[in-house]
Amino acid sequence: MALSYSTCPFSGSPARIRLAMLRRSFLKAALALPSGGVLGRFERLVAADRGKVKITGIKLKPVSGVAHTLVRIDTDAGLSGYGESGVSGAMMKAWLERYAPLLIGQDPLAIQVHFHRMSTLMHPYMARIPALSGIDMALWDLAGRLSGRPVYQLLGGPFRERVPMFINSQPRDMLEKAAVRDWAAKLREDPLGFKAVKIDAARPIGRPSGRYTTTLSNQDLRKIRTAFENVRQELGPEYDIMVHCHNEFDLPSSVGIARAVEQIEPTWLEDPLPVAFSDSWVSLKRASRVPLLTGEKLEMPHGFYPFLQHQAVDYIYPDIAFCGGLTGIVKIATLAALYRIPVATHNVGGILLTMASIHFGLSIHDFLTSETRLGQTRDVLAMAKNPPEIQGGSAGVPEGPGLGVELDEAGVRRFQRPEDPPEWV
Amino acid sequence: MALSYSTCPFSGSPARIRLAMLRRSFLKAALALPSGGVLGRFERLVAADRGKVKITGIKLKPVSGVAHTLVRIDTDAGLSGYGESGVSGAMMKAWLERYAPLLIGQDPLAIQVHFHRMSTLMHPYMARIPALSGIDMALWDLAGRLSGRPVYQLLGGPFRERVPMFINSQPRDMLEKAAVRDWAAKLREDPLGFKAVKIDAARPIGRPSGRYTTTLSNQDLRKIRTAFENVRQELGPEYDIMVHCHNEFDLPSSVGIARAVEQIEPTWLEDPLPVAFSDSWVSLKRASRVPLLTGEKLEMPHGFYPFLQHQAVDYIYPDIAFCGGLTGIVKIATLAALYRIPVATHNVGGILLTMASIHFGLSIHDFLTSETRLGQTRDVLAMAKNPPEIQGGSAGVPEGPGLGVELDEAGVRRFQRPEDPPEWV
Repeated sequence: MALSYSTCPFSGSPARIRLAMLRRSFLKAALALPSGGVLGRFERLVAADRGKVKITGIKLKPVSGVAHTLVRIDTDAGLSGYGESGVSGAMMKAWLERYAPLLIGQDPLAIQVHFHRMSTLMHPYMARIPALSGIDMALWDLAGRLSGRPVYQLLGGPFRERVPMFINSQPRDMLEKAAVRDWAAKLREDPLGFKAVKIDAARPIGRPSGRYTTTLSNQDLRKIRTAFENVRQELGPEYDIMVHCHNEFDLPSSVGIARAVEQIEPTWLEDPLPVAFSDSWVSLKRASRVPLLTGEKLEMPHGFYPFLQHQAVDYIYPDIAFCGGLTGIVKIATLAALYRIPVATHNVGGILLTMASIHFGLSIHDFLTSETRLGQTRDVLAMAKNPPEIQGGSAGVPEGPGLGVELDEAGVRRFQRPEDPPEWV
Repeated sequence: MALSYSTCPFSGSPARIRLAMLRRSFLKAALALPSGGVLGRFERLVAADRGKVKITGIKLKPVSGVAHTLVRIDTDAGLSGYGESGVSGAMMKAWLERYAPLLIGQDPLAIQVHFHRMSTLMHPYMARIPALSGIDMALWDLAGRLSGRPVYQLLGGPFRERVPMFINSQPRDMLEKAAVRDWAAKLREDPLGFKAVKIDAARPIGRPSGRYTTTLSNQDLRKIRTAFENVRQELGPEYDIMVHCHNEFDLPSSVGIARAVEQIEPTWLEDPLPVAFSDSWVSLKRASRVPLLTGEKLEMPHGFYPFLQHQAVDYIYPDIAFCGGLTGIVKIATLAALYRIPVATHNVGGILLTMASIHFGLSIHDFLTSETRLGQTRDVLAMAKNPPEIQGGSAGVPEGPGLGVELDEAGVRRFQRPEDPPEWV
């Protein structure tokens, strides 16, 4: 009753109890196996159980090509965990001034405690959820490596054998039928077999996406309708088409877009209205026959709460590098499950965020699909020495411990810009 | 109709139109005056009217002693504007990478346009409202200096002749009557005459304030009751007492605190529940006879919207260095006025934030009171060569242009820490 941190710092945190239970059951199985790798793992497991593993340092590597920063958490057990934060190197460095003192010297397995302390930080500055997201991801990777388990098992999965994925891709000119036909032909030849594609709504009308715009005219809306009809005609009914906005439209324009694309039966209309919840989202939902989705810029359960509570969207769409890491998205998904709303994952990041999305997608019942940057470049896979198995537009179950990939530093370098230091700093 | 930025970048922004009108009416008055300072001001005004003033640079000065960063916006007119952001130097530097390119070379008077562009920045990173708050404050200071007007006039005030203020102060031990008596005697001797004081609720029970805590016991609540009864007894009925929490309590504890302090008739109970809105705020409001206040960690109108919409608090409490600067707080106050909810201002910052709070307090009808750090140290006033006139617990109308103070660099230095560069960087 009424215990504060000072009297009872970490005992009984749910993550720790669950991890301890997992480790014990795994131990029984592992000791029965003849594999040569088991003893080292066993020693590490014992060390972890005895609370001997401590965080010794946190290093960063900005990858400006995906506008993210990689995080490495080192321990005195000689193992490190890796994560990816949805902020720049300079931003991550600024927040690490606040977060490192909360973590150095601590048991890395007390993930829920670390998440709580980082996310409730208030003075002198507020918590920065996208900055702690990569730290949390690295702690889960580390917990997996310490216990010899893939993250999806630590999260209680798998619910399925493959995780559906989709790409971003766009014809050069959606209003020019020949261009759409060429683009569609290339898409069908994709060796990774993606059959779900997200397409910008603002492109056919020549507006810069991501910048607030004034009311669309009927002429604009007719162009959008024609553009998406061309795409549907060339891709056929088997493809999933997502209509992509960037929170730049006003309410009448959003309703107009929803009606303009209704006939092509898009999988969803994404982010037409501003990021924060307002009753206009409810108005749009009532006026639209197209499923609505939002969430890539929302943080923590409280960011999604009004959208769920007011039945404003059909799907939610958190980004694990932004919304609060794996710990954060699990809490968000728990809330969504209460409303029976499926979860998709936003991902325009690198290999670590891609792996985190796959593990999460295996770990909840009502997972819809995960975005991937593979539509823009296959170099994402070169960021790992052992990239995930992706075919037929979906990813298989990762086998290794933690997030299941070893970074390929040369592959990571491809996403760095001249200003990014190549070493971990 | 449907003009985008590319076709119509700045024309007709409300701020610019209003400023132009103000400058014109001021010009007529100024030209009739014999003052020697008018001609220089006139030239500057003309230069501004012709759109010749451009932002040439933005400099920073971290003041870690108040956990804020000062912002200086330089122009080719030789005038600079000064503001204060509620973030660290490292955070401000990180965000300036995004904001400086939006501002350099632009007309500083297009304040609404700059606010819109900074606050709707989405890719690759979200806007950081506390970082842009100081930039916005500096733009208002600059607009005042360019037009020769105090900021409260640019904002359409004054509504009153003095701005009420309150301090933070606390007896060494609220449960020890002699200590409370000594403290109260000192408070009554205060030459600045403050008769409103905010006091931590967690101190009497020995909890570290600002850190989430588990449920308070009846013993805890009785201590809080006794502590605040001691304070009321020594201060008498003429003093305003605010009960200070830091978002650290759960719902039953918050209800318990509200009931424990009910008898002493506090002016408000502040921030007992977590920062983000939830229906528990409504539950607390229904269970409490004590006025509730929140908002120091909320940003933009959308942060305050659910609290207003659900009638969850009696007062809102934005911080101009955090919520979106002067432009942001005016928008927030407009929303609050719709609900007939008064606005108070949070302020634990330096002289610039103090001045911004005074100007804002003069500019809206239903302003309650502004916090000041003067209860902790009078050095805040030494940050200006011409500090504001404060007596009888309130501030007078500032007379100078802009925010009305010239920084005293030696006074600012008192709030810097060894790691803060003394020069503007």
